[in-house]
Amino acid sequence: MTPSPPTQLALPHVATLHAYTPGLQPAEPGWVKLNTNECPYPPSPRVAAALRAEIGADGAALRLYPNPQSGPLRAAVAKLHGLGEANVCIGNGSDDILNLLIRVFCAGDAAAGFMVPSYSLYPVLVGIQAGRSAPIAFDRSMRLPVGKIAASTARIFFLTSPNAPTGIGFPNAEIERVLADYRGLLVVDEAYAPFAGENAVPLLARYPNLVIVRTLSKAYSLAGIRVGYALAQPEAIGLLDRVRDSYNVNRLSQAAALAALGDPAYYDAMLAKVKATRDASLAEFAEKRGWFTYPSQANFIFTEPKNTRGETGPAVAQSAYDFLCRRKVLVRHFPSHALTAPFLRISVGTDREMQVLNDTLDAWLKTPHA
Amino acid sequence: MTPSPPTQLALPHVATLHAYTPGLQPAEPGWVKLNTNECPYPPSPRVAAALRAEIGADGAALRLYPNPQSGPLRAAVAKLHGLGEANVCIGNGSDDILNLLIRVFCAGDAAAGFMVPSYSLYPVLVGIQAGRSAPIAFDRSMRLPVGKIAASTARIFFLTSPNAPTGIGFPNAEIERVLADYRGLLVVDEAYAPFAGENAVPLLARYPNLVIVRTLSKAYSLAGIRVGYALAQPEAIGLLDRVRDSYNVNRLSQAAALAALGDPAYYDAMLAKVKATRDASLAEFAEKRGWFTYPSQANFIFTEPKNTRGETGPAVAQSAYDFLCRRKVLVRHFPSHALTAPFLRISVGTDREMQVLNDTLDAWLKTPHA
Repeated sequence: MTPSPPTQLALPHVATLHAYTPGLQPAEPGWVKLNTNECPYPPSPRVAAALRAEIGADGAALRLYPNPQSGPLRAAVAKLHGLGEANVCIGNGSDDILNLLIRVFCAGDAAAGFMVPSYSLYPVLVGIQAGRSAPIAFDRSMRLPVGKIAASTARIFFLTSPNAPTGIGFPNAEIERVLADYRGLLVVDEAYAPFAGENAVPLLARYPNLVIVRTLSKAYSLAGIRVGYALAQPEAIGLLDRVRDSYNVNRLSQAAALAALGDPAYYDAMLAKVKATRDASLAEFAEKRGWFTYPSQANFIFTEPKNTRGETGPAVAQSAYDFLCRRKVLVRHFPSHALTAPFLRISVGTDREMQVLNDTLDAWLKTPHA
Repeated sequence: MTPSPPTQLALPHVATLHAYTPGLQPAEPGWVKLNTNECPYPPSPRVAAALRAEIGADGAALRLYPNPQSGPLRAAVAKLHGLGEANVCIGNGSDDILNLLIRVFCAGDAAAGFMVPSYSLYPVLVGIQAGRSAPIAFDRSMRLPVGKIAASTARIFFLTSPNAPTGIGFPNAEIERVLADYRGLLVVDEAYAPFAGENAVPLLARYPNLVIVRTLSKAYSLAGIRVGYALAQPEAIGLLDRVRDSYNVNRLSQAAALAALGDPAYYDAMLAKVKATRDASLAEFAEKRGWFTYPSQANFIFTEPKNTRGETGPAVAQSAYDFLCRRKVLVRHFPSHALTAPFLRISVGTDREMQVLNDTLDAWLKTPHA
């Protein structure tokens, strides 16, 4: 008897999934890489030292399974935020945590809500779960529609703050207004919060239905090790641990993350540098160039290129993107949504990288097709 | 309005999940650790060297996201098995791959089948998916019930070969008899295949509905880095990639795995050593002690302790386990199933560790409560 092919055996929804499209990770050197919001500076020197210690002379420790709970790392994260270990779950990147949240709270009638545009992984994860999405649209003001979120019937709602790709942070006062009325679980995805003036951690004590998600990819310069975490009251954390893989975070990543969290002075200085470059870039784009640019509280800016004829729009953004790309300056363009298509998202690099970016945009403006 | 607490917002099946119980990972030193089938020898020295190179002076490479497809590692795995890159998917441990398989092929009426006893993670993953399990029972002979599996209506079937915790490997002739008639997707979980005389990789070319799962945790002494992979024809691999997290394997683990695969001479020698110790232990237990012991093709043995009164059974196994544990020799006891409760699963350690184990069992036999 001939069995059905794998695509016919697969669950029907899998055939129609749209995979998440990560930003390009060019293998060859020579790029000014401002497309995936990585930090331009190396992680704390303690990270390399801790990794060397974990590896030892011969890597013998690697033969053993990692700590299944990422115990010491959980404790360090708890301490960092003035919480207890029962308030923390560690993930293989914050994407792991987001996926666990979907698996616990979204299926069938239990929809997952999120703002559009925001992190485009949410609908992908809902799709994998064969769940239902309940998106809420921003308008061009990018103001948070507090009432709409509070009235959402979604079982779980993902709010990215500061938002991507705009960089706009939402004040705790607005988040509290959502929490006061929203009946589901509110996830504030704070991947970029260390670059912002405010974050929702102080709200945790009062709201059992608040989960905060963080990552070490951006503010700790550790996108390569895949460590993120959830902060919440113990009940929500316990649910995540039920569906988490027992060994989801490997030994080296646990060691690296632990070392990074132990060096706040290094990261305070690094964050100050990134924020200074960001603010200078905001001024450069918004004021000097006169391009519409959202006020970013993240490590990227979202700006609307304007050509020499004063035109903006998807084609102008695409032209700038393509020109930059040909000169090996990589930024991000999201052409598939009307509110993002006229814009470019530019990660904050070093001052020198931002100079190259600006020089290249000047060159673009001098081309006839700009 | 007061929202419902997270446990009430969670999907109903999450409340009743039984989490997978990993073997103990004691934090303090001094244990003879023979409980989670780790290799007693360090990984290839190339692993430590490759990690040092990836970390560099200051860990700067860690600021960048990893290769989303684990591209170079995929190529190396393909080459190792004489396959193409389209035949390989890399996971954050083979548990990641098993989870992806469940998410693609199991839900609602699409049940997941597996043998009992075998790897106890399968029903846990089915539970997280709110899927239906279709287990098939071994009898004490542990012979593969080929006809029953072939007739299973499960959409996907997980066959651990060599099996855990027994160590028994199933010949390709039997696996082919399953493949000839089974109408679903057959997953041969070959975590322990490098310790066996035969494996199912040669069958891949002829069977689009065969998926083979491997791990670097055991035979590459790299449980700490969490790397596993799937081998299959491109159609099945494409389905796994659709539901895989884009950055599921971090930079360091990719580098370590790649280095390990590049040193087959080291691992050939290591595997020979482990197999020699295993075979000596099998002789020790089966012949010298006269304990019933399954013929293992893995890096562990599954033996039925017999006390001085010639008694066997769950209480005898528990007594031996407890005695060993008090002497800081850690093995594994699975008391919850009738076919496993009278046995202990003992990972193959160094010859010296096996000597300590044997001496401790001798001491147990001299106690009045043995």
